[in-house]
Amino acid sequence: MAAPIEFWFDFSSPYGYLGSRRIEEIARRRSRDVRWRPFLLGVLFQTTGQKPLLLQPLRGPYASRDLQRTARLLKEPFRLPEPFPFSSVGPARFFYWLDAKDHTAASAYAKAVYRRAFVEGRAVSGAEDAAEIAAALGHDRAEVLSVLQRPEVKQRLKDINDEALNKGVFGSPFFIVDGEPFWGNDHLDQVERWIETGGW
Amino acid sequence: MAAPIEFWFDFSSPYGYLGSRRIEEIARRRSRDVRWRPFLLGVLFQTTGQKPLLLQPLRGPYASRDLQRTARLLKEPFRLPEPFPFSSVGPARFFYWLDAKDHTAASAYAKAVYRRAFVEGRAVSGAEDAAEIAAALGHDRAEVLSVLQRPEVKQRLKDINDEALNKGVFGSPFFIVDGEPFWGNDHLDQVERWIETGGW
Repeated sequence: MAAPIEFWFDFSSPYGYLGSRRIEEIARRRSRDVRWRPFLLGVLFQTTGQKPLLLQPLRGPYASRDLQRTARLLKEPFRLPEPFPFSSVGPARFFYWLDAKDHTAASAYAKAVYRRAFVEGRAVSGAEDAAEIAAALGHDRAEVLSVLQRPEVKQRLKDINDEALNKGVFGSPFFIVDGEPFWGNDHLDQVERWIETGGW
Repeated sequence: MAAPIEFWFDFSSPYGYLGSRRIEEIARRRSRDVRWRPFLLGVLFQTTGQKPLLLQPLRGPYASRDLQRTARLLKEPFRLPEPFPFSSVGPARFFYWLDAKDHTAASAYAKAVYRRAFVEGRAVSGAEDAAEIAAALGHDRAEVLSVLQRPEVKQRLKDINDEALNKGVFGSPFFIVDGEPFWGNDHLDQVERWIETGGW
């Protein structure tokens, strides 16, 4: 099987949530794996000078409308959780601890985070919520809370953010296919065509 | 015939250029007119806090690559003019002076500006260039230069920028179909579907 599609996203990104549904379909059709890669968009904003989309004048109200409209078009459930945006540090840290042992378990956790936030519209706002989501998947709640405090777990997420920066990732979702970068859900048609044709 | 598609763009926007090619095709297929609406993106940046895309860290290099890649996919010629970005005040002012008399002549002028900038890759950097492009279409060069200095022509472009802001336009290209806003070329599939279905 060819190299996995790198799927970079922030757990607090509603476009990332919508992208997660579509990239899995594309990967299935094209016999690729998806390598889920959560990162902290807020940290990258220090480099790009951007701010959270939904808080921006003009762009924010448009994005709210576009998210609802695009979700309806894709027939995907969509709600915004309260509070929003939320800190995605906890889920991202736990994700990579899990991912080092088992990619599938890690992506199952990621999907559960997105489901809670953007399907159920429930808060994902700290370590407690990150642990509760893990517990529902059979992980030990106390262990998750302990994992989230480990220096090497914190460092791992910092390294991942550096990797994102080095790869030129600046938004969520961001897809890398055989080294080629694609930003945003609207580029998923190009992603699929790139896989299909090997590039143009 | 139903209401025209409002096509908001900056003459200095390469994505606007690519969008101009596709929106005309969609309009033809769907029996709509396109109402070309140049504006000054730089003025709106004062509200959105954005900067010219190609000058931004991470986003700039990505956009350069994406523009070339998307142009190849669409089989559209594409070059960046020197200098870039350029001031689009001159062409925008002349456009609206022309548009008040003749929409078709105005859109022909707009197409000529885009062709010079992004097909031929030649400078469009001031009143002289704006007038030269107009002269090639049969307008009187001296008259164009005089028109560009008229207070009411300057005011008209300011009013247009206010209209853009009031309509929530914040990027180029930006399409409004029957009151519904769509940002970016990647949303053109949604634009066409919106026209086809009347919305969803």
